[in-house]
Amino acid sequence: MTDPAVAGLLTPADAEALAAAVLPAGVERFVGGAAGAELTLRANRAAFDRLHLVPRVLSDVSSVSTARALLGTDCALPVAVAPMAYQRAVHPDGELASARAAHDAGVPFTACTFSSTSVEDIAATGAATWFQLYWLRDRGHTEELLKRAEAAGCRAVMLTVDTPRMGRRTADMRGAFTLPDGVSPVHFGPRPDGVPRTVSSGVSAVAAQTADVVDPSLTWADLDWLRAHTHLPLVLKGVLDPADAERAAACGVDALVVSNHGGRQLDGALPALDALPAVARAVAGRCEVLLDSGIRSGTDVLKALALGADGVLLGRPVLWGLAAGGRQGVHRVLHLVREELELALALAGCPDLAAAARLRTVVGPAGEAG
Amino acid sequence: MTDPAVAGLLTPADAEALAAAVLPAGVERFVGGAAGAELTLRANRAAFDRLHLVPRVLSDVSSVSTARALLGTDCALPVAVAPMAYQRAVHPDGELASARAAHDAGVPFTACTFSSTSVEDIAATGAATWFQLYWLRDRGHTEELLKRAEAAGCRAVMLTVDTPRMGRRTADMRGAFTLPDGVSPVHFGPRPDGVPRTVSSGVSAVAAQTADVVDPSLTWADLDWLRAHTHLPLVLKGVLDPADAERAAACGVDALVVSNHGGRQLDGALPALDALPAVARAVAGRCEVLLDSGIRSGTDVLKALALGADGVLLGRPVLWGLAAGGRQGVHRVLHLVREELELALALAGCPDLAAAARLRTVVGPAGEAG
Amino acid sequence: MTDPAVAGLLTPADAEALAAAVLPAGVERFVGGAAGAELTLRANRAAFDRLHLVPRVLSDVSSVSTARALLGTDCALPVAVAPMAYQRAVHPDGELASARAAHDAGVPFTACTFSSTSVEDIAATGAATWFQLYWLRDRGHTEELLKRAEAAGCRAVMLTVDTPRMGRRTADMRGAFTLPDGVSPVHFGPRPDGVPRTVSSGVSAVAAQTADVVDPSLTWADLDWLRAHTHLPLVLKGVLDPADAERAAACGVDALVVSNHGGRQLDGALPALDALPAVARAVAGRCEVLLDSGIRSGTDVLKALALGADGVLLGRPVLWGLAAGGRQGVHRVLHLVREELELALALAGCPDLAAAARLRTVVGPAGEAG
Amino acid sequence: MTDPAVAGLLTPADAEALAAAVLPAGVERFVGGAAGAELTLRANRAAFDRLHLVPRVLSDVSSVSTARALLGTDCALPVAVAPMAYQRAVHPDGELASARAAHDAGVPFTACTFSSTSVEDIAATGAATWFQLYWLRDRGHTEELLKRAEAAGCRAVMLTVDTPRMGRRTADMRGAFTLPDGVSPVHFGPRPDGVPRTVSSGVSAVAAQTADVVDPSLTWADLDWLRAHTHLPLVLKGVLDPADAERAAACGVDALVVSNHGGRQLDGALPALDALPAVARAVAGRCEVLLDSGIRSGTDVLKALALGADGVLLGRPVLWGLAAGGRQGVHRVLHLVREELELALALAGCPDLAAAARLRTVVGPAGEAG
Repeated sequence: MTDPAVAGLLTPADAEALAAAVLPAGVERFVGGAAGAELTLRANRAAFDRLHLVPRVLSDVSSVSTARALLGTDCALPVAVAPMAYQRAVHPDGELASARAAHDAGVPFTACTFSSTSVEDIAATGAATWFQLYWLRDRGHTEELLKRAEAAGCRAVMLTVDTPRMGRRTADMRGAFTLPDGVSPVHFGPRPDGVPRTVSSGVSAVAAQTADVVDPSLTWADLDWLRAHTHLPLVLKGVLDPADAERAAACGVDALVVSNHGGRQLDGALPALDALPAVARAVAGRCEVLLDSGIRSGTDVLKALALGADGVLLGRPVLWGLAAGGRQGVHRVLHLVREELELALALAGCPDLAAAARLRTVVGPAGEAG
Repeated sequence: MTDPAVAGLLTPADAEALAAAVLPAGVERFVGGAAGAELTLRANRAAFDRLHLVPRVLSDVSSVSTARALLGTDCALPVAVAPMAYQRAVHPDGELASARAAHDAGVPFTACTFSSTSVEDIAATGAATWFQLYWLRDRGHTEELLKRAEAAGCRAVMLTVDTPRMGRRTADMRGAFTLPDGVSPVHFGPRPDGVPRTVSSGVSAVAAQTADVVDPSLTWADLDWLRAHTHLPLVLKGVLDPADAERAAACGVDALVVSNHGGRQLDGALPALDALPAVARAVAGRCEVLLDSGIRSGTDVLKALALGADGVLLGRPVLWGLAAGGRQGVHRVLHLVREELELALALAGCPDLAAAARLRTVVGPAGEAG
Repeated sequence: MTDPAVAGLLTPADAEALAAAVLPAGVERFVGGAAGAELTLRANRAAFDRLHLVPRVLSDVSSVSTARALLGTDCALPVAVAPMAYQRAVHPDGELASARAAHDAGVPFTACTFSSTSVEDIAATGAATWFQLYWLRDRGHTEELLKRAEAAGCRAVMLTVDTPRMGRRTADMRGAFTLPDGVSPVHFGPRPDGVPRTVSSGVSAVAAQTADVVDPSLTWADLDWLRAHTHLPLVLKGVLDPADAERAAACGVDALVVSNHGGRQLDGALPALDALPAVARAVAGRCEVLLDSGIRSGTDVLKALALGADGVLLGRPVLWGLAAGGRQGVHRVLHLVREELELALALAGCPDLAAAARLRTVVGPAGEAG
Repeated sequence: MTDPAVAGLLTPADAEALAAAVLPAGVERFVGGAAGAELTLRANRAAFDRLHLVPRVLSDVSSVSTARALLGTDCALPVAVAPMAYQRAVHPDGELASARAAHDAGVPFTACTFSSTSVEDIAATGAATWFQLYWLRDRGHTEELLKRAEAAGCRAVMLTVDTPRMGRRTADMRGAFTLPDGVSPVHFGPRPDGVPRTVSSGVSAVAAQTADVVDPSLTWADLDWLRAHTHLPLVLKGVLDPADAERAAACGVDALVVSNHGGRQLDGALPALDALPAVARAVAGRCEVLLDSGIRSGTDVLKALALGADGVLLGRPVLWGLAAGGRQGVHRVLHLVREELELALALAGCPDLAAAARLRTVVGPAGEAG
């Protein structure tokens, strides 16, 4: 039976308050917070709020399809669950709950390098699974993770390219955030480099862990190695500059994620939505373009599609749903996104996602609708 | 005798506070609220507030005329009462009070498909009456409504094209809004599809009703059927994209209403005022252009005229006046709009509405005058 | 001896708080308030706040001159006291105090049609006096006022062209503002049309008075009559549209005042500062260009000069100074404006007002420095 | 041992609150306040907050260099401590503490004309020292200061060109700010003109001092005299107009500082960051371009570099660190700026400062991220 609080959620954003009521403060900040003064976190939202859609009328919307293939995977929605580490810190069922809910909703789930549940267990839920890769200092470990992901049936590798180091998340530093007991990066097994260190005040254990294992020397040249070690479609996550997008498309990557990591990396980075049109023009259809950073509703998904995205990754709202009600909570959030997107398509006169890409948009002035 | 509170209203916006004091919370939200996060509701107002008029001087304004014909109906003001459903939920006299006040003020009244008073009773008030049509799943019922509207003496049919489904009005959903006892959509008579259903938490009865009876498959092709079944002038309400406006004008419609349904349909839609100039250019005089969504004063009417509208529809302020004082309250609101418009015309150096269309405007930055 | 509170004023804006402490609420609102929702009142200030000056360096500013002739009158500052009615409502000494302070400060004083002190008494203070004219329904009275102004030694006639009717000042209406006992429009003598009427709630006595005596039929053609009845330089006050400015210059007027009447007439009118550049370009030096509406400091004066004004009129700050300390209060305000302007010129690298006109400006985004 | 409060600072801005807790109110205002209504103070920050960086990806950032030579001095960071007077008012160790911390951090320190510690004592700390010069009415004194600076080993002379008079800092005036006992401008020795005067209410002693000794007649021609009296590299501080920048570059100055003096001179002046691109284009590499006014973090440094600066001067954060913890406090602030800059470079894909200059930027709307 569904928890009445979860059933009572009417928008994905409602889940944030429910999550705040159940999560320890440190975990809540780890989920909801961002880098620096959180300028980019707020700018991401402001970019969505000031973008106006121009609906069309008198097209038959008695049947509205939200379906699309992303990276060769049929999706009920143009949405995948974003890669998010350590989901067992948010709910005991962690990634398994989220992945099952993604499966129920017909959307892909992205398993993380820093997952608190193994990629094999995640894939066993039946969810279409993509694998997020951090470029590890230990190349052998990277190779092993790729093999495990392929063996588990993952359908894509998503290489994060905006995190040579972890961003400066001062709230986590101030609270000396450490993972709760029993939550660990299971892909690092019993190795010492995978055990979150005891940290002193002013340091985030998660940032220290990232610094220990992630290799900041990653360049374009390394993509050849990656191509040689996996046959899976390759996605680059964290591209904002159109020149990088052009180069990625020329290299033959299968998709880009236009993202500023939800404001968690470079505070002051361009809002992802503002970066999207130039990136979409630069790749000119040579690869798929996904977007994350700021999506909170189905209408936000429609705005991303209208600016040239093929789909989006959904992050924090999934974790808020997970905190609020485990698998049911995540499912409710994804269900609401679907309801909102379907309605927004109908109200914008779009029977399908192809029509959404043809909508006009107008950028309104900042602050007008805050 | 006039209620002192009503006589004390000095601006249409004053009526909102009076209405809030007398309406049940659910009805107040149903009237004043909008879809989603109410971004478009606020953006509508912000668009008016940041538009600056450039007055002219030294033209004789000893006599200022606010008169104009709209859709062949002589109007004392370039204003009509917008179609608004279920006005008996706001005041026991409902549509009859509003229509009588419109008649007193010399402006047309738009009777609704979802009216709580019959179109015949409304027209019998003597008000110039237009009939708002939702495209019903039951084509026979649509035909019957058209015949009734014509027989009652309605002077135009206004087809709503922005509501294939009702927008997601979360406040109504959260409160599980249902119509008060004794208020019903009388054009649906005793039929089961016309009776608002008992609804469970998280659902708006009014939205459920809309989904039951409104046909979302309406397209441009259906306008031929409509033309064949009525000789009345045809208005399309809810157009924002200039390409739709161009097509409508080419189809020979008599008027458009540039509208986002007061922010009650697609949250995130372009403010109607921002959409107006491109729509007016697109139709280039081939049909009349009306505007609604955000009008709160006579100066707002002048701003719409300066951007190319022939007239406006006035919505929520009428309902606030109705709540505050029935027929007298609506009359006071319309009287204030007239006083404000006449004064604004004089201060802008415009002896008539034709001069208003030649005023320069300047879009100021957002938030400057909030 | 100077009142310590007056001596402690460090900016003209400081006087507003002092005035609020001594004025009756109705008079304070009459002075500080504006029309409608006061959008234009706030927009006037926002326009100044978002205009950035680009200072020059390394020019000798050991001596800075703020002097300029305006309308043939040598002025210590490029500032005149704006025409403001009924100054005896603000302080018992009324216009005499303000005019003496203007004389002390070396700036012209503008006597009003609706003055509470006669133009002869004002001129007798020795202040350089300009005469503000409302176009009266009684042409003989107009002629008489012009003769009196000339005979009293006034040096210019400033015809107000933005007030065919008084703006809708809802605060005055709500409070049914009437002039204090003993304060009356003395230029109307004992005639009935000059006596402020007892008014009922919802009406401003001052607005009623204006409607009684001001002729809204004034047009360009009437300027010929005016030219024929006075040899004084002619100023048109209240011009915002560049086409009106062009016509005025072509007609040979001596000066324009770019003004929205401090937001007291058409609420929603363009901020005067935003209107200034196009007006200055339109007249192209054929007549002088003054500005009012929003000036609160010497730096504001410099901003107006940098956008093309020859000088400014100072309104509300003078009345605040008058309320705070009579002649001393006004003098302190004018002294502070001079100190601020002289310093701003020095810091901007301008030894004189001609250099100020060559400063670059940059319009910043709204709200940035609010 | 480091003070735990100082060690707990996680951003330079954190030091402001610590400083507020220890400084007398008058000193706190003298440090943190600015001229007039502080429009420019706030606009400086808003300019940084609305500038978005577009990071690059997949460049090897395993090693990030923040080093650069400025004015021939090797610097660990593209940062120098800005000239700030009377540092002994902020902490008993005054300039010695700041200079030692600058030395520890590998950045130059700028000694002031109005220093409370002699340039010789400052230079003896070992810090790379630049000397800030006010153009004194007493030319002999100027010459003597230049000789002392050269003899002490200073490596550059920074002539302040935006202060012919001191700006109108109303908070200091209201509080009749005077220097604490025992703090004096030591370069003026026992001469009467160097002793801060007792001042009456409404006057800042520091402003009076400046008026006494600074010569406002300084022009471009005087640079020849300066060139003839020192062999040190010459920097002009306080340039905002590109025409002044062009002239300075043509004159052969070694560097400019694009600055509005932290909002302490002309209130209403253009934000320094907004002035930077045009100045950088105007000098076109002929001299170095530094920036101050608004820098609060390492990311702000990166934003300045991306818009064309070679380096920045850091002001108030240094004084806040000094107040919070003397030398340790300043060192912590400089350390944090370095950590933030290094991280920002890595996250923006820049292995060095040359790459930073090639970053794209996008100006977002105002207020969006406030």
